[in-house]
Amino acid sequence: MKIIVIGASGTIGKAVSSHLAVRHEIVSVGANSGDVRADIRDIAQVRALFGQVGKVDAVVVAAGAVHFGPLAELGPEQFQVGIASKLMGQVNVAQVAAGYLNDGGSITLISGIVGEQPIRFGASASMINSAVEGFVRGAAIELPRGLRINAISPTVLEESLDTYGPYFYGFEAAPASRVALAYSRSVEGAQTGQVYRVW
Amino acid sequence: MKIIVIGASGTIGKAVSSHLAVRHEIVSVGANSGDVRADIRDIAQVRALFGQVGKVDAVVVAAGAVHFGPLAELGPEQFQVGIASKLMGQVNVAQVAAGYLNDGGSITLISGIVGEQPIRFGASASMINSAVEGFVRGAAIELPRGLRINAISPTVLEESLDTYGPYFYGFEAAPASRVALAYSRSVEGAQTGQVYRVW
Repeated sequence: MKIIVIGASGTIGKAVSSHLAVRHEIVSVGANSGDVRADIRDIAQVRALFGQVGKVDAVVVAAGAVHFGPLAELGPEQFQVGIASKLMGQVNVAQVAAGYLNDGGSITLISGIVGEQPIRFGASASMINSAVEGFVRGAAIELPRGLRINAISPTVLEESLDTYGPYFYGFEAAPASRVALAYSRSVEGAQTGQVYRVW
Repeated sequence: MKIIVIGASGTIGKAVSSHLAVRHEIVSVGANSGDVRADIRDIAQVRALFGQVGKVDAVVVAAGAVHFGPLAELGPEQFQVGIASKLMGQVNVAQVAAGYLNDGGSITLISGIVGEQPIRFGASASMINSAVEGFVRGAAIELPRGLRINAISPTVLEESLDTYGPYFYGFEAAPASRVALAYSRSVEGAQTGQVYRVW
């Protein structure tokens, strides 16, 4: 398969790329690095990305920012960070990808445990992760030509505990290599409309 | 209790208002009708609404638009309808309300069955309804002073079958009076972070 990995330079993106590269051709994409550059917040850049790469068999996303902060300090601007990036950035990818995927191809997006298991300072992340999962459920039943779409919902990464550990006391962490398995299951499996929880 | 009902002139809003008015003082709000006018998409109007009404014991929302249409025809503009209205409109209400609710007061938002049970033409609605429910889960654990927040997820309304029935073939409809019970349970109960499904 030819697989686009968006966010390929991140902790998850690197693990997913190396896991899938054993069997497949990887096109790495990032806002500031990779075989092709694209900021997924801008649908024009997403269209240019697919126009350049052409037909593929799978697209996986391991990218998207959300704002973390106390609920009382979240205003429209803070919510907009996640809406533009982790939510609509990924929706942009899915919507454009549908026109470039070969029959039976797949789209794999990323949500996160906070959508179901809230944490302090995480109200925006809960909202955005749940939104991504809702989009996946809705899009799955309308995609044509056997195209599939799933979401991966990781817990906090072992590799990120130095940075995010204090938000996630008491949560079981997972290594990025375990998250990569879920991406493989989405890309190389046959299900659609699923949320693969890695926790 | 003094209760603000946003979207009071709609099918659900009327049922909720008449159900709660038996025991409580209702302040009806709409974009174009009601005791006070406010378009919840604009946080400045939401702030003006609460500034005018002052302290209350509960805020319920039965308002918010989303775009319905074939997945292949959904672009950023179509998703933005629901993001601005049913999602961020309700988030605006919740965030401003937190500063005006009396201790132990409640916020009740609206999502919808399509967040969990997708329908054709409903990908944006699935995304937005799930986002509202995620926000509720996230906000519930951070609200101070015993403030509570829940979401009501109605199925298609019996009163709306003429308009929306063809989207919901095979779904059991519910009368708005039954949806009003779920609002009562949120406002007059003691739970928080819940999604009350009316289906």
